[in-house]
Amino acid sequence: MTLPAISALNNHRQAAKPALGLEGVIALESSICFIDGQKGELVYRGYDIRTLVRHVSFEEVAYLLWNGALPSRGELDRLQAHLCAERTLPPMVLDVLRLTPEDATPMAVLRTCVSVLAHFDAEADDMRPEANYRKAVRLTARIPVIIAAFARIRCGLDPVAPLKGHSTAYNFLYMLSGERPGPEAEKTLDAALVLHAEHSLNASTFAGRVIGSTLADIYAAVTGAIGALSGPLHGGANIRVMQMLLALDQSGESPAAYVRERLARKERIMGFGHRVYKVIDPRAVILHKMMRALAKERQALKWERYCQEIRDVMESEKGINPNVDFYTAPIYYMLGIDADLYTPLFVMSRITGWTAHLLEQWHANRLIRPRARYTGPRQLRVEPISRRQISMA
Amino acid sequence: MTLPAISALNNHRQAAKPALGLEGVIALESSICFIDGQKGELVYRGYDIRTLVRHVSFEEVAYLLWNGALPSRGELDRLQAHLCAERTLPPMVLDVLRLTPEDATPMAVLRTCVSVLAHFDAEADDMRPEANYRKAVRLTARIPVIIAAFARIRCGLDPVAPLKGHSTAYNFLYMLSGERPGPEAEKTLDAALVLHAEHSLNASTFAGRVIGSTLADIYAAVTGAIGALSGPLHGGANIRVMQMLLALDQSGESPAAYVRERLARKERIMGFGHRVYKVIDPRAVILHKMMRALAKERQALKWERYCQEIRDVMESEKGINPNVDFYTAPIYYMLGIDADLYTPLFVMSRITGWTAHLLEQWHANRLIRPRARYTGPRQLRVEPISRRQISMA
Repeated sequence: MTLPAISALNNHRQAAKPALGLEGVIALESSICFIDGQKGELVYRGYDIRTLVRHVSFEEVAYLLWNGALPSRGELDRLQAHLCAERTLPPMVLDVLRLTPEDATPMAVLRTCVSVLAHFDAEADDMRPEANYRKAVRLTARIPVIIAAFARIRCGLDPVAPLKGHSTAYNFLYMLSGERPGPEAEKTLDAALVLHAEHSLNASTFAGRVIGSTLADIYAAVTGAIGALSGPLHGGANIRVMQMLLALDQSGESPAAYVRERLARKERIMGFGHRVYKVIDPRAVILHKMMRALAKERQALKWERYCQEIRDVMESEKGINPNVDFYTAPIYYMLGIDADLYTPLFVMSRITGWTAHLLEQWHANRLIRPRARYTGPRQLRVEPISRRQISMA
Repeated sequence: MTLPAISALNNHRQAAKPALGLEGVIALESSICFIDGQKGELVYRGYDIRTLVRHVSFEEVAYLLWNGALPSRGELDRLQAHLCAERTLPPMVLDVLRLTPEDATPMAVLRTCVSVLAHFDAEADDMRPEANYRKAVRLTARIPVIIAAFARIRCGLDPVAPLKGHSTAYNFLYMLSGERPGPEAEKTLDAALVLHAEHSLNASTFAGRVIGSTLADIYAAVTGAIGALSGPLHGGANIRVMQMLLALDQSGESPAAYVRERLARKERIMGFGHRVYKVIDPRAVILHKMMRALAKERQALKWERYCQEIRDVMESEKGINPNVDFYTAPIYYMLGIDADLYTPLFVMSRITGWTAHLLEQWHANRLIRPRARYTGPRQLRVEPISRRQISMA
């Protein structure tokens, strides 16, 4: 069947029965990410996430997502040199960070700064694939520098310049604290970045592709994706998990009692459930192990204990599994990262998936423009203003 | 049929046959805007656009879109006072505009500044409907001030403060030029704002709702919508129409020959065609009349002549009608507005439609998250890096 015919068929069917929130609706074809929600499988470009996290670095994953194949040694070296060369921010970004109120929301600040980057990119509206590829590398290099600089400037500290020849994870921890991280911390953050890099058409990736489908530039699309990821129903959940764990730690309340009480009040427990996974999210399984190892190493087993108690109650009472946010929060906390930076860290990783999707979108672009079913009135007459009723209470 | 049942049905159907670009797919229900593409009808909240543009102001349309009813005299007065009170920018926005390179793209600058507004809005993450309503008014008040301030600062001029007690159209023209506009100019811009205020689920409105559906705040959603509108396939088209008209005016080339030549090379002529309208866009009909009247008044009938010649060739050769961008461009040009500000002017109007959609989205929120059909490989094995092939040329 030809495409217009398929489309006409869909028009007819869809017009009759909308799937609110587009749940289950196929919006586009993509060769980047496969998720089997029934089996709990997550696959980047054909590679299972459990294999990737054991064998490859975040930079290799970035290369894989953009190019569709893992890099050779030479290709990886060139990408690392490219990332290293792009880690300098335009001075206006630092000026903006200094003008920004210290209590500003980090996700909003990151959004502002990524938008500012566009003003200094001579390739910003060059839509050739090679220019967009360079911009993807540039954004991946600069986002960690922005996050670390803001984290320091808001505390009255000077930003720390990145080091040459290290990984994204190493450099981020170094720029944040001014101290060289140990191998365990680097490895843990690197693995977290691998696990967060891509997740098919989630709301932020989809928002980015919708924006990109107008042939708006990569900064426009990524700024929108950051906005989507800031929402509490999307990336904004990990900060709330940590707030819950910290509140439990401070009050000394039993985690199980806390959860039961909230469930009785029909409140939501953050860090559980996922629209796509019907069994446990494979990332949660890996992060759980990483969290346990880190908690042992840092002698902070209480976090593991709180998480386990919460998880047990959620399992027995609701039959819902933890998601990727649930274990990411205590991991980042043990790495010494402020809770309100967890969603920016999500961006630091997901920028690779977003930009891979944008490169794919532009490879065979088609405007993404669904329809709404109109449910309002028709054929109203405009009354002169003096005769109109007061409409609002 | 209950909603989950409908959804399951759609899952099944959609999984079999994706409609690429979601063309014709119903994504959500909305009572804001109705478009009949076959008849060439555009309806805001039950009122035909042809009636609205004759009888009501942009501020009344904003009220209508947000509240679902036209305002009484007292309600309109209160909205105007509210807009007036919100026309002061946080000083950081002006600082950012002064730091911005003078050749920065105005849409990118507007995106940056709207993002900065969030840092100074104490209600930014207050998701109560009344707080979001106030933020919608605030954004509608401030966006024209940002555009006018940037237009002046990039020429080395000081921004002009808004006047009390005038319309959005009057104040924008005043802040831009420093001179009080005549009634014809105010009326023309006001009508253009009415015509651009809302257009159902276009790509920018849809991007905004996708972002908003994560419960991200209004600034996140509007920043993304601005990004989408900057795309050449969406709001970015009006600047290109003017570039074409100006090039014709400079070269003295026959517009008909220009169009024929480009069509022969399979190039696109900007300002024609629309995915939704099969007959002529009703806004184009109204704008054409407005353009003709303004061209007469300003003794600049050449624009009308160029447009007519282009339109005639497009009609006879391709059977495609002009769209809203085609006549907006020469109108704004005759009002003395720089071509690269036309898309920001689109934002100045569409902010009302975007925010009406966000208020509606949040009234009964559901995460917007479609699926992709995976077309890539499966079950690949990670080779050690030393054994990997070079993947890229």
